[in-house]
Amino acid sequence: MITRKKTSQIFVGKVAVGGNSPVSIQSMTNTPTTDIVATIKQIQELESAGCEIVRCAIPDTESVLALYKILPEIHIPLIADIHFDYKLALGAIKAGVDGLRINPGNIGSKDKVQEVVAAARDKKIPIRIGVNAGSLSKKTIMKYGVTPQAIVESALVHVSILENLGYYEMKISVKSSDVVTMLESYRMLSKKVVYPLHLGITEAGTRFSSTVKSSLGIGALLAEGIGDTIRVSVTGNPIDEISIAKEIQKSLGLRKGLQIISCPTCGRTSIDLITLTEQVEKALLPYSDYDIKVAVMGCVVNGPGEAREADFGIAGGNGEGLIFKKGEIIGKVPEKMLLTELIKLIENYLPQ
Amino acid sequence: MITRKKTSQIFVGKVAVGGNSPVSIQSMTNTPTTDIVATIKQIQELESAGCEIVRCAIPDTESVLALYKILPEIHIPLIADIHFDYKLALGAIKAGVDGLRINPGNIGSKDKVQEVVAAARDKKIPIRIGVNAGSLSKKTIMKYGVTPQAIVESALVHVSILENLGYYEMKISVKSSDVVTMLESYRMLSKKVVYPLHLGITEAGTRFSSTVKSSLGIGALLAEGIGDTIRVSVTGNPIDEISIAKEIQKSLGLRKGLQIISCPTCGRTSIDLITLTEQVEKALLPYSDYDIKVAVMGCVVNGPGEAREADFGIAGGNGEGLIFKKGEIIGKVPEKMLLTELIKLIENYLPQ
Repeated sequence: MITRKKTSQIFVGKVAVGGNSPVSIQSMTNTPTTDIVATIKQIQELESAGCEIVRCAIPDTESVLALYKILPEIHIPLIADIHFDYKLALGAIKAGVDGLRINPGNIGSKDKVQEVVAAARDKKIPIRIGVNAGSLSKKTIMKYGVTPQAIVESALVHVSILENLGYYEMKISVKSSDVVTMLESYRMLSKKVVYPLHLGITEAGTRFSSTVKSSLGIGALLAEGIGDTIRVSVTGNPIDEISIAKEIQKSLGLRKGLQIISCPTCGRTSIDLITLTEQVEKALLPYSDYDIKVAVMGCVVNGPGEAREADFGIAGGNGEGLIFKKGEIIGKVPEKMLLTELIKLIENYLPQ
Repeated sequence: MITRKKTSQIFVGKVAVGGNSPVSIQSMTNTPTTDIVATIKQIQELESAGCEIVRCAIPDTESVLALYKILPEIHIPLIADIHFDYKLALGAIKAGVDGLRINPGNIGSKDKVQEVVAAARDKKIPIRIGVNAGSLSKKTIMKYGVTPQAIVESALVHVSILENLGYYEMKISVKSSDVVTMLESYRMLSKKVVYPLHLGITEAGTRFSSTVKSSLGIGALLAEGIGDTIRVSVTGNPIDEISIAKEIQKSLGLRKGLQIISCPTCGRTSIDLITLTEQVEKALLPYSDYDIKVAVMGCVVNGPGEAREADFGIAGGNGEGLIFKKGEIIGKVPEKMLLTELIKLIENYLPQ
């Protein structure tokens, strides 16, 4: 039901971004990049969780050297996150990274920018321009304040530097820690460029705060068709970023996968639905990549109707429960058999 | 920055809903309403958490009688959730509830509807019309499928029943478990009525799933100016519904309160920022109603700039850290003193 805005397409390694390719999920390591063992381990864990593109901070030459050891051990594209130093950018490209995050306006002289762009062009490596409140110049802030307009204008300055060099392999982010500013910045930018957009909320806080802000900010834009790749930021384990990103996309039908819908229970509920739902979640964990919607309802009267859109469901109460498939009741079993019967039904349905 | 859509105003007890009154937070008890002690306890816990309107299921006469014991013990308005039975509605009104959730088209004969509306009018009690996929008639589904159009058309049928009786004290919900359907239904409805809208995602699942779906669905609409009162549904402890609802509103600047922004850390971070952020969260818990934004950043170079919008912040690394106020550095202290100094600064700033 979502019509995505058409953008130009770039490739971060093997992963297409933009041009109607699936919205990819990114994360960033929080290990010191020079701790090669820890960084490889974290990237491999992110891969297993479903991360599709990973970014590493490259603050020094030692980190560039670490890339030579890290890259052969991982299976997803790696983007080097570089602030200011063009030599680090050149080094990372030479080491074989799949993308750069660097703001061309912050690299320094025109010569240095040209050198980085030439190296990126040679290796077909895209550049992400990433502007946020923290990267605005004093001049821009004096003129506009920290507003969506300031952020977008600043991004466009960096864009024009690349365009003037005939380089178009780019994606852009205009993150903010303020959700309303973030929404407005991306909407404004989306009208002005054809490049793919990388969505995110910066400094989104710990898991709970980030789940709320990222679902709202990233989700609302994706629902409008804006956004080609996303990164949820969490102060915590980056693995959490992947589960939040996946859940946002599943909620919008942008990514296939298991969805469990369950009612909040009320004074009418005569079954321990909270425990039952947790049991269903746990039992279906191995099937989380299958595109099925499962309902767990506490009301025999309204349950099957309310969960009409679910592929499979159960509705329990007063010692017995109904099993239904696409809104149609297909069985009645004692309450204690509900979980077993539901899982059996789903396992029989799934391709072996 | 959000311009809210102007709606008509109703009162649920002392709480104004619509007409530019603050977006109120609702929840629903999941205790049996007939368990008077448990229901009072849960409502009082919801009150302490910040719930502003509570709803209880009234499935039978015993539940109506329980209202006489519950209402004197609570301090927020109570809405009776009634399916079909007009006698329960009349009983609940007589018992002194502050609102009804009932769909007039499902009550039965015109006489019965008139009787309920007359009783509501007499006590100045508003009615919520709540339509979702589960309450659509077979005829409607045959005509439209389970689409936003079907849901909105169905809601408008109930609305016209009340309007034809000259009753306008109503609010409307068009919830769905599917976020995209929910967004479209409310947008469509918002263009067709002036009544306040009650936002929610139904069967949103357990805490994590509901946090994602509710933040996205409810949050995106609030950001567009749609929505006058909200209920987050969680299969779990209803107290969680309040914290999610509050966080959504705080993210959008619709509700004052403490916000902690913190960076996700990266390979540049040379401080245990995750633990520090958790410590800051815990230390500031007593101040969660104060309207301050606090930043916890892992980077001395970029931290203060990136967190320019924060009222207070710290940025740490390499054994020492900066303390800043509105983007301006006001002190440098050893890393182990960062937490203490930040809290001291904030406590001195807050009104005693």
